[in-house]
This record gives sequence, C-alpha cells and structure tokens, in this order.
Amino acid sequence: MQALWLEDRQLSVREIEVPRLAGEALIRITLSGICGTDIELSRGYYPFTGVIGHEFVGGVVESPDPAWIGRRVVGEINAACGTCEACRNGRPAHCETRTVLGIAQRNGAHAEYVTLPLANLHEVPPSVPDESAVFTEPLAAAIEILQQIHVRPDDRVLLVGAGRLGQLVAQVLSLTGARLHVVARHEHQRALLHARGIESIAESDIETRRYDVVVEATGSPSGLDLAREALRPRGILVLKSTYHGDVTLDLAPFVVDEITIVGSRCGPFAPALRMLARGDVDPISLVGETYSLAQAVEAMSAAQQPGAMKVLLRSVPESEGERP
Amino acid sequence: MQALWLEDRQLSVREIEVPRLAGEALIRITLSGICGTDIELSRGYYPFTGVIGHEFVGGVVESPDPAWIGRRVVGEINAACGTCEACRNGRPAHCETRTVLGIAQRNGAHAEYVTLPLANLHEVPPSVPDESAVFTEPLAAAIEILQQIHVRPDDRVLLVGAGRLGQLVAQVLSLTGARLHVVARHEHQRALLHARGIESIAESDIETRRYDVVVEATGSPSGLDLAREALRPRGILVLKSTYHGDVTLDLAPFVVDEITIVGSRCGPFAPALRMLARGDVDPISLVGETYSLAQAVEAMSAAQQPGAMKVLLRSVPESEGERP
Repeated sequence: MQALWLEDRQLSVREIEVPRLAGEALIRITLSGICGTDIELSRGYYPFTGVIGHEFVGGVVESPDPAWIGRRVVGEINAACGTCEACRNGRPAHCETRTVLGIAQRNGAHAEYVTLPLANLHEVPPSVPDESAVFTEPLAAAIEILQQIHVRPDDRVLLVGAGRLGQLVAQVLSLTGARLHVVARHEHQRALLHARGIESIAESDIETRRYDVVVEATGSPSGLDLAREALRPRGILVLKSTYHGDVTLDLAPFVVDEITIVGSRCGPFAPALRMLARGDVDPISLVGETYSLAQAVEAMSAAQQPGAMKVLLRSVPESEGERP
Repeated sequence: MQALWLEDRQLSVREIEVPRLAGEALIRITLSGICGTDIELSRGYYPFTGVIGHEFVGGVVESPDPAWIGRRVVGEINAACGTCEACRNGRPAHCETRTVLGIAQRNGAHAEYVTLPLANLHEVPPSVPDESAVFTEPLAAAIEILQQIHVRPDDRVLLVGAGRLGQLVAQVLSLTGARLHVVARHEHQRALLHARGIESIAESDIETRRYDVVVEATGSPSGLDLAREALRPRGILVLKSTYHGDVTLDLAPFVVDEITIVGSRCGPFAPALRMLARGDVDPISLVGETYSLAQAVEAMSAAQQPGAMKVLLRSVPESEGERP
C-alpha cells in the first residue's frame, strides 16, 4: 500500500506492506488530515520513524469482532495497555506504555490502511460527512478544554491563535455563550470567525489583566506573553499547544496573581461526534486543499504555508473500494 | 394603556395610567411571553397585585439618558438597590430589597408600557428578531445552570421535563456536547428535541444511579423522585423550577451519596443574547400561539393547557408605533 513515510527528517510516499496486528481492526482510510504535530515530527522535534498521520476517517475491513466490519469509523490515537495505574484509573490517554498513532511506536494514518484496537474506534453517525468526521480528533482536543475547566457563560475569554486548531477551539468556546475575543493573525482567519458570530480582536486592543480565561494556541513565546498579560488575577491560562525547546518563564507573577495553568492535549471523541452530528460546529469551512495520498509530500509543504487551512489527503479514489 | 391586571386571583385586561418612574426608562412593549410563574401568580402561589409579566422585548421611548431612546431592548427583572451587601458583592439578583418585574412590588410587562432602571436594560442585536428576543429572560435562566456548575462534554446528563423552560434548558445543555437524555411527557416536545439532535428517553429506560448531572425542571415531587434515582453518587442535582408547599425529602441518601443540590433561578442576559445572535439556540420553534394584549385573559388560559408551548402577547399592532 502507499504511505507517507518519515525517516531522518525526510518525507516520502513509499510502498509498504498492509499492516496487520493481532487483535486489532484493519481500517481502509478514506481521508486523513495534516496536523501541526505532523509538521513538527517532520522537523525532527520528536523522534519518530514510520508512517505519520493521526487524524482520519475510514471503513473497517477486518476486525476480531466481525460486528465492526463495514462500519465507518474515526479512532482515538492513544493505544493503551489497559492494565497500568493510569489505565485502571480511567486515564488511558496517559498510559505509561501507550503507543500513539503516527506519533510514537505506531504507524499512522497518512496511508491506505491503518490498524487500531477496537477500544479506540468510534462509529461515525450517518449524518456526518467524511470531510467533517476527519476533524473528530482535533475537535476532541478543542473540547478537552471544557472537559478540564469550567468556562462560565458570562466569563471573558481570550483565545490567542486562530489557525487550524485555534478555529476549532474558537467554535467550541463560543458555544459556552462566553464573551470570546480571538487574536487572529490572518484576514481569512478573521473572516471565518466572523461568519460564526465570533469577535476578533487586534493585539493592541487587548485589555491587560482583564480576562477570566485565556487559551494560548500559537505555541510561540510571544503568544504566551500576550496570554499572560491579558489574564486577570486568579484567572486560568490554558496551554493548548506544544512549545519547543525551553521557554523562559518568570513564575513569580503567576504565584502573586494566583494563576492556574492547565496543559491541554487529547480530548473525548464522543462529544466531538455529538457536536458534529448536531451541527453545532462546522469544520468543513476550515478545509483548504485536498491532495491525493500520492501527493502527500507536496501536501505537507502546502500545510506549512503561513496561515494555511486544513490540508486533507484522500486515500481512496472515489470510484475505488476494493479489499486489500 | 391596556394591561393584564391580577388582583385576588382574578385576571382582567384593564385600562391604567402609563407608568412613569423617576430615573427609569419607559419602554413600549412589542411582545411579552407568558411564563409558568405568571400562571403560579394567578393561582395565588405568591401574593401580588398589579400587572404581571416579566418576559418582554420593546423599544425605549423615554429615558434619563437620551442615548437609550429608540433602542430595542430586553430587561433583567430584578431591580436592585445597589447599596446592600448582596449588591455590593455583585449579586444584584439577590438584593434584599429588590423589586421584581411583574412578580414583586413592580408592575410587569403584559402591558403597553413598562418602566425599568437603565441598569436592567440590554440592547437587542439587530440580527435577533422580536419573536426570539422575547425569550431572552427564560434563556438566561437556562444558561444560569452553566453559570453555576461545570457540565463536562463527556458527562451523562438527564433533564426531567421538556416544557417551555425545559426545551430551552435542553438546547443550552446540548451545546456542552454532553450525552443528554430528556424525559418529555408529550409527543410534540419529543419532536422539538429530535429536530435539534437531542435524545428523548422514556422514564422506564432511565438507568438508576448513572447520571453525573440531573436537572429537574418539572416542579413536581414525582419529577424530583425520578431525578434523585437517576443521579450517581457524588452527582449534581439542579433544581430548575419552584416547588409549592412542602416537599417531603429524605435527606439521608443525599448525605450517604454525597449529592450536591443546586437551586437555580435567574441568569445572565448577555450570554443569552450572544447565543441568540449566533443562532446557537432556536426559541422560535417553541412559540405556540400569539394573542393580542386585549385577549390576554384567554392567552393565560391557553398557556395552562397541558403541554402548551410558549404563548406570546403582542402589544403593538404591527402598523402602530406612536408615542404615549
């Protein structure tokens, strides 16, 4: 099968064996989405050799439980041991020996096929199209914020960053009814927000020490500084992105102002699918270009353009659908 | 002017003076909504003599600050003193000497005109039609639940009751992404929920001790029993309705199960108007019949039919709009 292979910071589309793993489902990928983490992996920020990609929708073609065969699914990316302390306490995404789809110890979804444990799969409701379902994983990551902290309807909330993940975070935060301001660098990002009734704000208009909750989604030290200045004493700072290398942070003001800092990563798939099915979020407007899997290296370049929207890879030609 | 007057449990539409109160705005009512509390007042559950009605949308015709004149507004119903301990601590809705629109010490909105302090007014965004804006007050009451408690996207939530307020509560709770089940007595209530992608559940299908959050919105002892049985240990029970007379409650199981009980009343208008402007809730589908103010007594009867939807009173004939 074709797959987007990463090795020594080099990307290539190569022909590899269809994966088969005892006890896991085999899934024929329909669409996969390129995420900031894919780009970071390709730059060598994390060590990984293999097939990258962890946002996908596809159809189950083989399964230890035949009831799954033929179902359209999305998949949680952390494959857990099920027996360690984290797993036994209901935190499989933090399993100490987990493998992570296309990120750690497990080949990913920018390929024709992928395998995952049945416990990771979620069936996609019929009303949710593939182009929407492929956003389930990043949407779940956005929803994780509301899983972690209580955003009140009359809170003042600032979101710094309106890229691919930021747009989903903005849509999810706006559902709380909170007064939401978003710092968006690019005009098309502001237009997308405006279409959803969400207010953009220029950096220069941000009131300092005023917001109850600030979500940092740029991953840049300047974004973090901006977030910190906007937060009121006793406010909550959510870190919704990863930072590379050391970030110098003066922690004293955090103590004086009694700030809560919350790191936020993967989130729950079930509410993401419910929001997609109810139409309460609209990811399709966030799709930029769609490439064939054969053009995956070019697609990765396109996804790295400043302000690029979501780039998708289509693995199944629309006329095709054969078994491996 | 015409007004719906309550005295000794008798309702009548009568001619009274246009109200004028120093320091307050005079508002020409366009639409008012009949609420369960109006019905309870008319049954003598609370002592009140005067004009009832507290859900309205209208236009400011006189104001101590002329900037308000001509604006389309909704109004918070609690008029606070501004100086007591509750007011000084940001809880004006709990002011000890407050008057309450159409409920306590203040004539209400089922009338051609009403007065309110400027501090109570909220301008309605142009995109929100009158038929939607008139729901701002009950929608704010629904939103108050999310102001008070943290409903997580992967919580299991049960709502008991799907009447006029229950439908708004259902729509607001569904925006959290939570797995929401609603107990609805009437078929048309279930149809309204289904149209929003919200699941109804038969009483017999409710799993006991299973829900993280249960909202009781029937105001009946049987609804309260149902809510209590559905709640898991350490769960949260929200009382989103009033109970008349004594309710016998065995509190021991609440202690053993470490249940949190939260009483919930009026809520914040600003997020309600944001949700209406963004289109995240749809109250217009909840409108039943609209009567003229002259037919207000008949409208009150219609609103008391089992399963009745929201009954509105139109105070301004659509061609009219003169100054008092």
